[in-house]
Amino acid sequence: MKCEVVAVGTELLLGQIVDTNSSWIGEQLALVGIDSHYQTKVGDNLDRMIEVLRQAVDRSDAVIVCGGLGPTQDDITRNAIAAVMGVELVRDPALVEKIQQMFGGRGRVMPENNLLQADVPVGASLNPAMPGTAPGLICPLTGGDDGKVIYAVPGVPWEMQQMVTAGILPDLQARAGITAVLRSRTLRTWGQSESGLAEQLDEEIQRLDEAGTATIAFLASGWEGLKVRITAKAATEAEVVEILDEEEARVREIIGDIVFGLDDDTMESVVLQLLRDRGLTLGLAESLTGGLIASRLTNIPGCSDVFRGAIVPYHRDLKQSVLGAPDVPAVSEEMVLAMAAGVCETLGSDVGIAVSGVAGPDPHEGLEPGALWIGLHLPDHSEAINLTLPFDRERIRQFTCIMSLNLLRTRILGGS
Amino acid sequence: MKCEVVAVGTELLLGQIVDTNSSWIGEQLALVGIDSHYQTKVGDNLDRMIEVLRQAVDRSDAVIVCGGLGPTQDDITRNAIAAVMGVELVRDPALVEKIQQMFGGRGRVMPENNLLQADVPVGASLNPAMPGTAPGLICPLTGGDDGKVIYAVPGVPWEMQQMVTAGILPDLQARAGITAVLRSRTLRTWGQSESGLAEQLDEEIQRLDEAGTATIAFLASGWEGLKVRITAKAATEAEVVEILDEEEARVREIIGDIVFGLDDDTMESVVLQLLRDRGLTLGLAESLTGGLIASRLTNIPGCSDVFRGAIVPYHRDLKQSVLGAPDVPAVSEEMVLAMAAGVCETLGSDVGIAVSGVAGPDPHEGLEPGALWIGLHLPDHSEAINLTLPFDRERIRQFTCIMSLNLLRTRILGGS
Repeated sequence: MKCEVVAVGTELLLGQIVDTNSSWIGEQLALVGIDSHYQTKVGDNLDRMIEVLRQAVDRSDAVIVCGGLGPTQDDITRNAIAAVMGVELVRDPALVEKIQQMFGGRGRVMPENNLLQADVPVGASLNPAMPGTAPGLICPLTGGDDGKVIYAVPGVPWEMQQMVTAGILPDLQARAGITAVLRSRTLRTWGQSESGLAEQLDEEIQRLDEAGTATIAFLASGWEGLKVRITAKAATEAEVVEILDEEEARVREIIGDIVFGLDDDTMESVVLQLLRDRGLTLGLAESLTGGLIASRLTNIPGCSDVFRGAIVPYHRDLKQSVLGAPDVPAVSEEMVLAMAAGVCETLGSDVGIAVSGVAGPDPHEGLEPGALWIGLHLPDHSEAINLTLPFDRERIRQFTCIMSLNLLRTRILGGS
Repeated sequence: MKCEVVAVGTELLLGQIVDTNSSWIGEQLALVGIDSHYQTKVGDNLDRMIEVLRQAVDRSDAVIVCGGLGPTQDDITRNAIAAVMGVELVRDPALVEKIQQMFGGRGRVMPENNLLQADVPVGASLNPAMPGTAPGLICPLTGGDDGKVIYAVPGVPWEMQQMVTAGILPDLQARAGITAVLRSRTLRTWGQSESGLAEQLDEEIQRLDEAGTATIAFLASGWEGLKVRITAKAATEAEVVEILDEEEARVREIIGDIVFGLDDDTMESVVLQLLRDRGLTLGLAESLTGGLIASRLTNIPGCSDVFRGAIVPYHRDLKQSVLGAPDVPAVSEEMVLAMAAGVCETLGSDVGIAVSGVAGPDPHEGLEPGALWIGLHLPDHSEAINLTLPFDRERIRQFTCIMSLNLLRTRILGGS
């Protein structure tokens, strides 16, 4: 079973919008075991859309076409699909009523154009999910293309995602005769390179290759860390979860405490939860990162029970006047230790993280860009580490952010 | 002249990397007046790459293929191009030497595989830009495809961008017989909706349509504001600049002080420069935004002469203990005025911005998510504004960031 993706919209070709929808759909298809060999972007032009859809149907078993289902004159995806199917569009009275109700429910008058969204190719059915006013279409092909199908979804990401998950992936799996349950679990890691992890897990990956129970894939994600994805297939949900549990335990035993979380965890959410579990509050003294760590932590709802606040002593003299640091070099062990202790005092937190360094692009006080210190103050422990990051300004700040949180994480867990 | 884009890489199809390269190339092509009707993603598979390139050559005059030029076994773009050209690959001795020198210059031993990057299809020439070890290729076609061309560039964005700018766009324009100079200027705006701007500029856009001297396009960019792009074409650089200057002045006269900058300016860079010009320093008291404004300002090199620092008094009692605010509701006019004045005192800055509000997703102290106050303290002026933003947590924080900086901008400029 091969399924390809067609993204529709002149704004995509002009680079006004980056096509993240196709990437997301590609990832979902891979996760449920459907091959996808091509993704195409085409503008709002009927002839070219028909040509692209025709070709996709010829070389694949299914096509997901994304965008062009709105109520304007530019939205002609349903016309292109009808042409490929060789059928007419008919207005669906149930859909008319549904769209009218959605407008009525929001107390707005519906523009007449919106009824275009109730036009459906003859023979098509509706996607069971319909979070907006644009219906998703499931369009089976006939004749020489019997058994093939075109799915149409809107370009609005959250509408598209609901429709793919609820109405397309299960249908594709059924058509492919996939009865097995396929599930993935992602181990979020920080502190090891992709080649290093691959080397550590080499034997286990070979063992899995032979056993055929699960697969392991790596996904480098910048300052989000390196993701290790375990994918398994089994007859039932319970069995697949058992395989994933077992494999997760094996992988954790091999790669150790560089695993900071699972799936939707982030370094920030994990550190906040660790502090919460231990009844500790956090304060930050951010010079180098200039508020970046604080802004990441406060992006997480409910952080306020743990996170007391931050001081960004960007000007040198504030390290002394606000944090009570001594008159030592701004980027030094003594300074970050004093800042970390001082921020606990000033903000009344149990734990303090302090960072100071040279963000670049120019050297500062005789230090090269990327030279930095991270200081940590816990109720029963203080330390500072020194790093030199060979990156540009943005990545120096980003990596300092996750490295300082990871340092706190490992210390709370008692690691070295 | 039609040019399409092919992005190569199985990781693109699997959604592990979002293809931003094609979007960037699409934008550049549009800016120099080259049509682009299709963009295709294909995996690292020789047959499918040849098929996709063949089709692109058939329906367009030029193809830019991006990725697959590295030194690994997966990197087979040069093989696919040679197949489409009907020629062999030959190792280019000058390129061998250049690649060896690049490695030598970094003091590293070159893996033998890297010499694969010196293999070039017979008849191809090199892109004049070569910022990494992967050369860019310019591959003219012959026979029935005479006059057509395939350009190959690496998938690393900054290498690709240099090659497109230096070696591909000028070549495409020459092939298209475009001798006119096409230039754009982007007016960065904040404070007006796209439909509002379109209405204000409606008459001017009609006038330009008739005069044919320039075009105006809008590009909504979230919390980066709304971009108004003026594009003009003329025989010489001097003439096109004159047209852009004239049109920029007209547009500014119509839409007024919502224009905060040009081209690469950001709200942060503009506000920092305004403060610098007036010899003023800045301090922030960020509750709602939790360090986001500070992290944006400190992302800009050289900010430290103007930006003194920030206090993130996330916990309620810090607004009093660190900033000396009175015991008033956390989200109120009195609070943000006191915080803005207090942060000037604590950080020794001339100007203070304070924000406090409910980020959500839950209501807080009887206020709905999105309810917020922004306070401003200048040497000769204080004020506070109240807003309710109907957004999610992330956008509430983002919009508060740019709105507070824009408030400062307009006040420094003496606007209302």
